[in-house]
Amino acid sequence: MNARFANRMNYVKPSAIRELLQYGADPNIISFGGGYPDPSIFPVEQLNYVYQSSITKNGRTALQYTVSNGIPRLREQIAQRMTRDGVPCSAENILVLQGGQQGLDLVAKMLIDRGDVIVTEGPTFLGALIAFNPYEPKYVSVPMDENGMDMDELERVLERQSGIKFLYTVPDFQNPTGVTLSLERRKRLVELANRYDFIVLEDSPYREVRYEGEAIPPIKSFDTEGRVIYLGSFSKILAPGLRLGWVVGSESLVQQLGLLKLAADTQCSTLNMSAVSEYLDTYDIDQHIASIREVYRRKKNIMLEAIRQSFPKSVKFTEPSGGMFTWLTFPEGFDAAQFMRERAVPEAKVAFVPGATFFPTSNKPNHARLSYATQSNDSIVKGIGALGDLLTAML
Amino acid sequence: MNARFANRMNYVKPSAIRELLQYGADPNIISFGGGYPDPSIFPVEQLNYVYQSSITKNGRTALQYTVSNGIPRLREQIAQRMTRDGVPCSAENILVLQGGQQGLDLVAKMLIDRGDVIVTEGPTFLGALIAFNPYEPKYVSVPMDENGMDMDELERVLERQSGIKFLYTVPDFQNPTGVTLSLERRKRLVELANRYDFIVLEDSPYREVRYEGEAIPPIKSFDTEGRVIYLGSFSKILAPGLRLGWVVGSESLVQQLGLLKLAADTQCSTLNMSAVSEYLDTYDIDQHIASIREVYRRKKNIMLEAIRQSFPKSVKFTEPSGGMFTWLTFPEGFDAAQFMRERAVPEAKVAFVPGATFFPTSNKPNHARLSYATQSNDSIVKGIGALGDLLTAML
Repeated sequence: MNARFANRMNYVKPSAIRELLQYGADPNIISFGGGYPDPSIFPVEQLNYVYQSSITKNGRTALQYTVSNGIPRLREQIAQRMTRDGVPCSAENILVLQGGQQGLDLVAKMLIDRGDVIVTEGPTFLGALIAFNPYEPKYVSVPMDENGMDMDELERVLERQSGIKFLYTVPDFQNPTGVTLSLERRKRLVELANRYDFIVLEDSPYREVRYEGEAIPPIKSFDTEGRVIYLGSFSKILAPGLRLGWVVGSESLVQQLGLLKLAADTQCSTLNMSAVSEYLDTYDIDQHIASIREVYRRKKNIMLEAIRQSFPKSVKFTEPSGGMFTWLTFPEGFDAAQFMRERAVPEAKVAFVPGATFFPTSNKPNHARLSYATQSNDSIVKGIGALGDLLTAML
Repeated sequence: MNARFANRMNYVKPSAIRELLQYGADPNIISFGGGYPDPSIFPVEQLNYVYQSSITKNGRTALQYTVSNGIPRLREQIAQRMTRDGVPCSAENILVLQGGQQGLDLVAKMLIDRGDVIVTEGPTFLGALIAFNPYEPKYVSVPMDENGMDMDELERVLERQSGIKFLYTVPDFQNPTGVTLSLERRKRLVELANRYDFIVLEDSPYREVRYEGEAIPPIKSFDTEGRVIYLGSFSKILAPGLRLGWVVGSESLVQQLGLLKLAADTQCSTLNMSAVSEYLDTYDIDQHIASIREVYRRKKNIMLEAIRQSFPKSVKFTEPSGGMFTWLTFPEGFDAAQFMRERAVPEAKVAFVPGATFFPTSNKPNHARLSYATQSNDSIVKGIGALGDLLTAML
């Protein structure tokens, strides 16, 4: 058979993260690679209760098809939480998604014509690139510092590059850098979006997992012209295996995305939506999130302390106030992918994600993403120590 | 904001089925419109058991991320069932989907470049059209008779139309007609696919809900060159609210589709996959399917008997051996959409799906799809009787 795949298949490459999952599955390797939540934080008993309750009290409905935008009660609950977070909205502004990832796919499908320019942070979330790539955009990436995307640099891009379709950002505890976009920059980003007429796709799955400092309002909260699309997720605050996220946007935008959702997979699992809705009605998710924050705060502190103690000073790292990741910067000329393949995995039995894969336009080899979310405290200390020994000998 | 949507948004229109859902939600209307399974057949107690068991025994895994192609045990179980059904395969040939609908989207995304020609039955499944449309194909539709797609007509199409990307068919108890593709035509379709070098997308969600006659092997079972892609679903044999289906294809095809799945929504719900896998290990799904068949056989007989008794002879209907639908053909010149809007809904309080929407290329107004799956036996008798009274007065 000579299947002629569509052009867009050229852009789907086995992702580095997927290849890395093999290390995650190997019990002899300490993997700081995947973005898996610590499974000890899953509210197993409570979820067991709400599934039982959804099925036994309401099974004929909870197991049936429902409206493709998501069950109304859950959309209301999400709208209430978003309103409390500074984004006043109602159920009509919410579309329930198969995880935040589906929002990336549907927004790309809605907005990107082949060759359209989209702006991302450099580095940016790999899952966004693999969602956008099949629609064949061109990327412009804007560098970051400790306060997120550099807005002066963005403005220079906007001056020379017309016809930008949208800007993609992970403003809170970014994947992969752990960096948070500052308040002033959020406001300036909305001003620039208004002035230069582009859409902002705000992807914030880690937003509620902040363990230090005050929350900064979502970019969407400064939106005056309905041009910010917000993506949220239950993966990090409840459990990723439920595959539930949401988009917040204008009613007309949610309607358009809802039609694409209907075409893509009809709807999310009615049962999962019912159970999560009942969870939100029965339990205090904010109390649960507070306990997640404690766990990650501790793990983050353990990892950063171990890095301080064992890494050579020439290796820089970010200090996240939330989320799951720290970002390493090795000296110029250091190839993190080669280091992992030839030294870290075989000698130290430690894996991570080499940073090059997170850059859409350049290929900067001297970075790595480490997640402190998945490994136990002991494994973090052991794995970082082993990496540190290798790096100290090399640098 | 002047959001410039991608060209493909022009092709996403609010679907007739979606508009129709409002009638389904109105308790005063007897709707034969939706393709909802009868909720009385859901195995509520058994599902309650397997969810409890998956969460309590195995929650840390069942609530976590998993491999994007689907948990290995479920893929094995599906492969075993497909093998028993005449399609020898292993877990590597299976990709678990967010319902069969996602297979339509991913295959279209993989194969269709703008302007590519795809062949469908005329009429065909509306959900397929709305999945394909955003990728901007051109359609050729081939008429059907009581044995499915007319293969002589297909061959004429293939002779005059080069570069056909794929052919889409629902061979078993087709949606919307209820018609089944005969054995000889299945074999001939594969021969034609080999000769004219196109892919066959075989979508068979109703396959196991056969209540009369012997099963005809899947088209995929005659596939000699790896050019048939098979889509299956748990929606009709277990529950649609779980959103689980699958694709069967060559390993390389499943790998490609798996990358698109990863990009589209990461993976299906780990919990739903775990629970269904445990259901298949714990219970006899074939026994359950046998009871579903009984329910639908009875409903089908009730509806067809009521049609025979109350409809004028000039209204023709199909006699399905399985699935959920019968297809009405009214006399030439009869507009079924107008009839529903102006007479059936206001006067008889009965809704159905007017047939025009199922034709990708023409617009034949004198058809309607009736589902006997959702309504109670009494409502079927009452609704068909009321329609019959109206039609008898009109025709």
